[in-house]
Amino acid sequence: MSTQSPRRKRATVHDVAIEAGVSRGTVSRVVNGERYVSDEARAAIEAAIVKVGYVPNTAARNLVMQRTQAVAFIVHEPGPLFVEDPNIGEILLGANATLSAADYQMTILVVDSERDTERVARFLRGGFVDGLIMVSARTDDPITRVIEQLELPAAFVGHPPGLTAAWVGIDNRGSARAVTERLVATGRRHIGMIAAALDRDSGVDRLQGFTDALGDRFRSDLVESVPLYSYSAGVDGMRALLARRPEIDGVFAASDAVAAGAIEALREAGRSIPDDVGVVGFDDSAWARRTHPGLSTVRQPAAGLGRAAAESVLAQLGGEQPLVDGIMVETAIVWRESA
Amino acid sequence: MSTQSPRRKRATVHDVAIEAGVSRGTVSRVVNGERYVSDEARAAIEAAIVKVGYVPNTAARNLVMQRTQAVAFIVHEPGPLFVEDPNIGEILLGANATLSAADYQMTILVVDSERDTERVARFLRGGFVDGLIMVSARTDDPITRVIEQLELPAAFVGHPPGLTAAWVGIDNRGSARAVTERLVATGRRHIGMIAAALDRDSGVDRLQGFTDALGDRFRSDLVESVPLYSYSAGVDGMRALLARRPEIDGVFAASDAVAAGAIEALREAGRSIPDDVGVVGFDDSAWARRTHPGLSTVRQPAAGLGRAAAESVLAQLGGEQPLVDGIMVETAIVWRESA
Repeated sequence: MSTQSPRRKRATVHDVAIEAGVSRGTVSRVVNGERYVSDEARAAIEAAIVKVGYVPNTAARNLVMQRTQAVAFIVHEPGPLFVEDPNIGEILLGANATLSAADYQMTILVVDSERDTERVARFLRGGFVDGLIMVSARTDDPITRVIEQLELPAAFVGHPPGLTAAWVGIDNRGSARAVTERLVATGRRHIGMIAAALDRDSGVDRLQGFTDALGDRFRSDLVESVPLYSYSAGVDGMRALLARRPEIDGVFAASDAVAAGAIEALREAGRSIPDDVGVVGFDDSAWARRTHPGLSTVRQPAAGLGRAAAESVLAQLGGEQPLVDGIMVETAIVWRESA
Repeated sequence: MSTQSPRRKRATVHDVAIEAGVSRGTVSRVVNGERYVSDEARAAIEAAIVKVGYVPNTAARNLVMQRTQAVAFIVHEPGPLFVEDPNIGEILLGANATLSAADYQMTILVVDSERDTERVARFLRGGFVDGLIMVSARTDDPITRVIEQLELPAAFVGHPPGLTAAWVGIDNRGSARAVTERLVATGRRHIGMIAAALDRDSGVDRLQGFTDALGDRFRSDLVESVPLYSYSAGVDGMRALLARRPEIDGVFAASDAVAAGAIEALREAGRSIPDDVGVVGFDDSAWARRTHPGLSTVRQPAAGLGRAAAESVLAQLGGEQPLVDGIMVETAIVWRESA
């Protein structure tokens, strides 16, 4: 590659040594700020560094120090959702702010295919980062197994079953129960759920909270399961529920994006919200503030989750043991007009 | 740090050599798959590798090869917009797919503060990546200057004035002109614009295309400038235009997110779309398909821009000269119900 390249090859310590007429070891001592170099040699080396355009290689120096000052942020989402889910962006920005303040470079790695999984695993094993944050891991996610074997400081956002690493999260089950209970309390009699992402702890826990709230009134044909926390999945899920159980008068959508899609499908079907059908979501993301009517939902402090995950990684980098029992961040129910 | 850490230090070639009773050079030859090692030494080294838990350090090997097999994707956006702008996500996923197919790891770096700028510059200089893609650079962006001095294969999405690196982009000016001409052709007489991001080439070019289309009919008090391509900026911009020029009957919003905000402000003000006011946007992002009525807009092939930028970086890594004249990707006008 470098033989074909029209670009000038990066200058090395060797080039500086030849230019200055000293040994490479002497150049290294100057570059690394060590003592025991004559003023004359130091001056010659400094002039040579400018002349050949040498830039000390941080990667090389970090390697010797066994640190990179970089932390990976791994997002396991199929393409469209990484774009569409404002939670991921907010978690990411919260983590970046905390890592940046500690002078760590956050490098985001997207896992969007099996090929990505293998390559990210290689990257993590390869010594490019000092630690990592993982969001939206699946149950039995191959990346999770790789991370657990790595001996790198790590924090998960969310808590896949069997995880042995540090994690931060919210009470998905209790929050889902609370938001569903409101639908019950306002007299809805045929309450359904658009359940999403049942390959993840958050998806399973939200469904569990819904069944907790309904108790004996739970009817399995009032639950439609969709693959992703996405708008289009919400449209599809609501259409399916309306077709199967047209008397439906309340719906808990597993995320705000899903709820926005459900509202669109209800609008198509001529149902008014909240008069005909009450709708509640989960996240309090930007979606919730742009639906008509405004969406009642569970406020999830996404940026706070990112900050907490970053703090956990920094604490581990500072020598603390990871808190494998998890750190829970508070949620709140937000009532608007949709239910 | 490592002295405090409860984690076991990563095993090195040195540990393997001691365990196997051979020199470090012999271990390196085995690890790197070289010949001229006795079967006996090889067996001892392989056993020692397993015993001490040695993992070859890819970062170290890459350093010797002067390559990392990683490409940076740099996003310069203030926090909320990185979350809200679907274009960035689609550019990112297009680039990731192309780099992934070539077995390159894309590492996304967010520039969200001055502190981030300095640290990202250090990271890029430090030998952690073989090349980079930069989106949403500002005019006179400090990061742009850093990149131009780096001698790293680079491609920009968009074209800040004075840029000397390779870039991919669209004809923002011509596309903005075409979409505005439609407002003129349908008989609108008081056509305004919510201009955004005038610190970037895309923002300036879209405003220029708007003025091209209006010619003598251009009125500066029918242009409201907002800082970002965001929904809330669109709400603010439309409110300002309605207050200043209530007779306004057509508006070109500089992006679909801005248009969605404008539609919300028009709804508040009791104006019907398209009867009272025609609205056009720019991007054909997910926003355009979720407004009511559906948004007429310019289709920008965002994933295609990401792929083209990645292909440019890969070509440069393969020894080709960067195409500093730029690569233009086609746009199309999409007519829906809003104008």
